[in-house]
Amino acid sequence: MAAEIITDTQSTDDPVDAVFALHRGGKMEIRATVPVRDAEDLSLAYTPGVARVCTAIAEQPELVDDYTWKSNTVAVVTDGTAVLGLGDIGPRASLPVMEGKAILFKQFGGVDAVPIALDCTGVDEIVETVVRLAPSFGGVNLEDISAPRCFEIEKQLQERLDIPVFHDDQHGTAIVTTAALWNAAEVTGRRIGDLRAVISGAGAAGIAIAKMLLAAGIGDVAVCDRRGVVHQGREDLTDAKAEIAALTNRTGRKGTLADALAGADVFIGVSGGTVPEEVVATMAPGCFIFAMANPTPEIHPEVAHRYAAVVATGRSDFPNQINNVLAFPGIFAGALSVRAGRISEGMKLAAAKALAGVVADELTPQKVIPSPFDERVAPAVTRAVAEAAKAEGIARV
Amino acid sequence: MAAEIITDTQSTDDPVDAVFALHRGGKMEIRATVPVRDAEDLSLAYTPGVARVCTAIAEQPELVDDYTWKSNTVAVVTDGTAVLGLGDIGPRASLPVMEGKAILFKQFGGVDAVPIALDCTGVDEIVETVVRLAPSFGGVNLEDISAPRCFEIEKQLQERLDIPVFHDDQHGTAIVTTAALWNAAEVTGRRIGDLRAVISGAGAAGIAIAKMLLAAGIGDVAVCDRRGVVHQGREDLTDAKAEIAALTNRTGRKGTLADALAGADVFIGVSGGTVPEEVVATMAPGCFIFAMANPTPEIHPEVAHRYAAVVATGRSDFPNQINNVLAFPGIFAGALSVRAGRISEGMKLAAAKALAGVVADELTPQKVIPSPFDERVAPAVTRAVAEAAKAEGIARV
Repeated sequence: MAAEIITDTQSTDDPVDAVFALHRGGKMEIRATVPVRDAEDLSLAYTPGVARVCTAIAEQPELVDDYTWKSNTVAVVTDGTAVLGLGDIGPRASLPVMEGKAILFKQFGGVDAVPIALDCTGVDEIVETVVRLAPSFGGVNLEDISAPRCFEIEKQLQERLDIPVFHDDQHGTAIVTTAALWNAAEVTGRRIGDLRAVISGAGAAGIAIAKMLLAAGIGDVAVCDRRGVVHQGREDLTDAKAEIAALTNRTGRKGTLADALAGADVFIGVSGGTVPEEVVATMAPGCFIFAMANPTPEIHPEVAHRYAAVVATGRSDFPNQINNVLAFPGIFAGALSVRAGRISEGMKLAAAKALAGVVADELTPQKVIPSPFDERVAPAVTRAVAEAAKAEGIARV
Repeated sequence: MAAEIITDTQSTDDPVDAVFALHRGGKMEIRATVPVRDAEDLSLAYTPGVARVCTAIAEQPELVDDYTWKSNTVAVVTDGTAVLGLGDIGPRASLPVMEGKAILFKQFGGVDAVPIALDCTGVDEIVETVVRLAPSFGGVNLEDISAPRCFEIEKQLQERLDIPVFHDDQHGTAIVTTAALWNAAEVTGRRIGDLRAVISGAGAAGIAIAKMLLAAGIGDVAVCDRRGVVHQGREDLTDAKAEIAALTNRTGRKGTLADALAGADVFIGVSGGTVPEEVVATMAPGCFIFAMANPTPEIHPEVAHRYAAVVATGRSDFPNQINNVLAFPGIFAGALSVRAGRISEGMKLAAAKALAGVVADELTPQKVIPSPFDERVAPAVTRAVAEAAKAEGIARV
């Protein structure tokens, strides 16, 4: 049953289905954290007492962070255009994912999160809408917005808002992947600077991973889209791909994903699709294979293990699950705890280091990344992100 | 202490102040209603299981109401321009009120509500923003948006959305006032059709109360703004006031509030300001005085009792508190429970009747309206609103 649920993404009419039964009525609710039992409670939490808090905030705006839920609350914003592997299913159909995200924020980071699924897809519309919403929130987690719009939306929002704006499909994935790669290198006695990586997928995740691996000092990395290696000679590139072409692929490779993989040390799959075993066989000895497509990895772990020293997937039923939940709750909890106005590259790298560090003393090829349920993860990431924010002068408390 | 808090709306530097202590960190949080303890939980509530629910909603959009929290969740939307009696204090400073409202929604109606304080004040901007947000919510409670923009915003949103849009400052106040007036008439043996009412205040509440009293069959009603009686001869009227001038004041009164009150049977204050005792003394014998300004009633209850048969205020420390919390939780709970696409005039009248009915068997001049903590209120209003929606064919389940 569990295995069936994991691999079957079709709807069902079976009324007793466990997934649908669990989702009935939604997965979250609002709860008061103060009593509202009698007239005195009401006079403190609502009128007339509340007017004094409003007046204080009107006079001293930063008090909003002390006396409302704003500073611990994140808007999980999507337009429903790139939901899981399902694609553009629209805002309403995206809500179950956004609710899932929200409860993971609370469970793992203690952060309150509100699903905001938008009925618009234009960059300007989304940016304007989120700017107008921002007074109610301490941060914005962009989610499942398709590339290349996601890059421009994030960039504009970061310029216009003084709260953290973080596109999790980019940076969450990049942080967890980088942590796993550091530990894979560690456990196999390799140096990051000696590795050549190939990323299959030039969407939000692929581009962000490439940038973060460069920041982490990777030897070289090439990104592949459906037409093959992204390189500066191509004339069909979006702005985001053109930027990545200039930063990556130092050896100037061209051709297909298979061409790029010959002799490569690292495969990172964030694309879907399948890599044939004969291509996998051409990778360098002792390579790492992170095949993260869900539910079907680009290279099945059984195949991958024939060639690779370290294998990771996005699935919970294999070792080394690269799961964003390892990052986003602690990232936001850390940033919000010090009221950082943004999430810097340094804060992301600190998160990856802290995440890798959680299993530093228990590394094996089957454990280069902690389990999503390892209770040490969120506190470690939270602390590291807060400290990095303080060290960079980004913290406001 | 309690009395001081009730009447003092100034900010304080006293760190142990009960109101500020209670507000620290905000008054609400998100809670998961499903377990997220282990990998199997995660595979049901999040990936990969959640993909099946998304797919089902993409194929059959109305399932969003069954399998997400949307259908029980209301956006409490403000721009912070007319917050309590504090006026235009902006979106951030309005948040404590919006949170208070949200926890009352949950406490009294079982409805999940999310504060959305907007950083824009233009009618078109607010309307567009709320339309874009709407996929995440089952209803929209507009709150503390100044007149006359509030009328146009509500009207446009009602036209564009297929979920209930309800400006509580208008209709919540009108519903509770109408219920109190019905019972005041009942307990004193008067007929609504024989009463002449004067409303002090031509903002959101005053205009909505006038319309509802007309729908309830009031003999006559005149609305007064700062320049006196609103009548068709005035050339300084906004569209909303011009509309009300055509509907009210059948006897064509002109002049000041004091002129209108001479011989009037009902005073309804939603304005602030003070009515001198010598003016109160000119009202008809056995009159009703509902002086609802907070924290200072337009006519102090002690003064009012010298002339009136029934006295009500907006304060919790006097009998007959006209408090919106008697209406909005049940209104939305009822509308959401049957997935009504709007809240009709019939549903509002049904709410007022149900609210009045709660104390029908225990009426006294000191009890023409239930206490906000009367546990019979919300279920009675919820049921009446749902039944009215069904009777009118507005219910969708």
